[in-house]
Amino acid sequence: MNVDEKYFKNISNRERALFEGAITMGALFHQFIGTPVNLESVSELERSIKTAMELQPCIERVDIEIDRRILEETKSEFNYVSLSGEMIKVEVLSIYKGKKAVLIIEYIKELNYPLMYVKKIDE
Amino acid sequence: MNVDEKYFKNISNRERALFEGAITMGALFHQFIGTPVNLESVSELERSIKTAMELQPCIERVDIEIDRRILEETKSEFNYVSLSGEMIKVEVLSIYKGKKAVLIIEYIKELNYPLMYVKKIDE
Amino acid sequence: MNVDEKYFKNISNRERALFEGAITMGALFHQFIGTPVNLESVSELERSIKTAMELQPCIERVDIEIDRRILEETKSEFNYVSLSGEMIKVEVLSIYKGKKAVLIIEYIKELNYPLMYVKKIDE
Amino acid sequence: MNVDEKYFKNISNRERALFEGAITMGALFHQFIGTPVNLESVSELERSIKTAMELQPCIERVDIEIDRRILEETKSEFNYVSLSGEMIKVEVLSIYKGKKAVLIIEYIKELNYPLMYVKKIDE
Repeated sequence: MNVDEKYFKNISNRERALFEGAITMGALFHQFIGTPVNLESVSELERSIKTAMELQPCIERVDIEIDRRILEETKSEFNYVSLSGEMIKVEVLSIYKGKKAVLIIEYIKELNYPLMYVKKIDE
Repeated sequence: MNVDEKYFKNISNRERALFEGAITMGALFHQFIGTPVNLESVSELERSIKTAMELQPCIERVDIEIDRRILEETKSEFNYVSLSGEMIKVEVLSIYKGKKAVLIIEYIKELNYPLMYVKKIDE
Repeated sequence: MNVDEKYFKNISNRERALFEGAITMGALFHQFIGTPVNLESVSELERSIKTAMELQPCIERVDIEIDRRILEETKSEFNYVSLSGEMIKVEVLSIYKGKKAVLIIEYIKELNYPLMYVKKIDE
Repeated sequence: MNVDEKYFKNISNRERALFEGAITMGALFHQFIGTPVNLESVSELERSIKTAMELQPCIERVDIEIDRRILEETKSEFNYVSLSGEMIKVEVLSIYKGKKAVLIIEYIKELNYPLMYVKKIDE
């Protein structure tokens, strides 16, 4: 089966890159929020999130940074916290037939919200 | 802050609808896969998934159908199963400034994969 | 197969009730943390969490209360938040062969932690 | 605050080990089921699950094995799958004041269920 022909002929190549990148952002957030994490485990968790999310269609690269300062400031009596939206900054590079989209997850204080937005996209 | 001006001026209205709908599909899948479910609880779970996902930006309507036949066929000795990608069919209607996108999650047997695709999108 | 004979003969009836209740608390927390929620959707989400978790072995009753005040205070520009450990109070009643355990998930400010503990357990 | 005095004086040391281990099994399952995984990423994911879950109270060691054969057999057209209960075998060592509990998550074909049970527990 030609998946692209059958399911995606109603959007452009640029839009396909956008579409797949957006799915990956929603997936990443809702899969990993809640995971126990602290300063000792954080690099391991970042690597694992990156590796898992790079498996998805069109996803060329995922970079995630978990805020070490927040980890320290919010840690409980038991020396870890649950990963939350305030702690993560993510950049997703999605490519379809040469068209690139760079998408971001970033907590915006003014909005009190982990915003997902488009940083750059090919014409 | 004008979020649209600041973060989304590099994509069209149609693309914004596509973008927000795609995020919601990734989010829905990775938030709820794994939830215990059986024939008695399935309607409740469908309603709750619908209600939760309709909170997200630009999401006008989410319809989800969990396959009752698969629930019955796969149920364990303990009379329930974990929700999986094979069981769900989802339709998301996303609208931004009048531009509509209808997106689908559907398990495609030939691909052995819960495909997310674009059913209809305004010009 | 007699599951109890084969897999659980090394613990008492009271311990089995404790064991199954504890599994359900860990499951509930890590399945639903991150779910979008606001004042309009909160009752629906509570019902759905209750119904899903009551499917698990030995679980007689799950009561969950999501804190409406925190929902209001922490809501984002987009009028909802991700469910977090600070917001939930849960009581799980687990029974095995007449032995009851009542278990609690409760955010304890002094610990900065959603503590899971034993409220009452039969001798 | 003395957490043990305040919240756990109604259970024995052996029961506390059992309790904390059971929470961790429920948490592990419902946090990570659904994660994208294939043969290339599986070791990374195993390490990350281990590291995250070993942060929880009383958890001395978590060993997880994701079944490579199932990964290969069930992979989609897109060369990965969502982690499911059929794929995992987990052993959790929980210790409280010298009392050890060894707990297992294992998919039991006859039950069609990822059973959580007690392998060994100190008197």
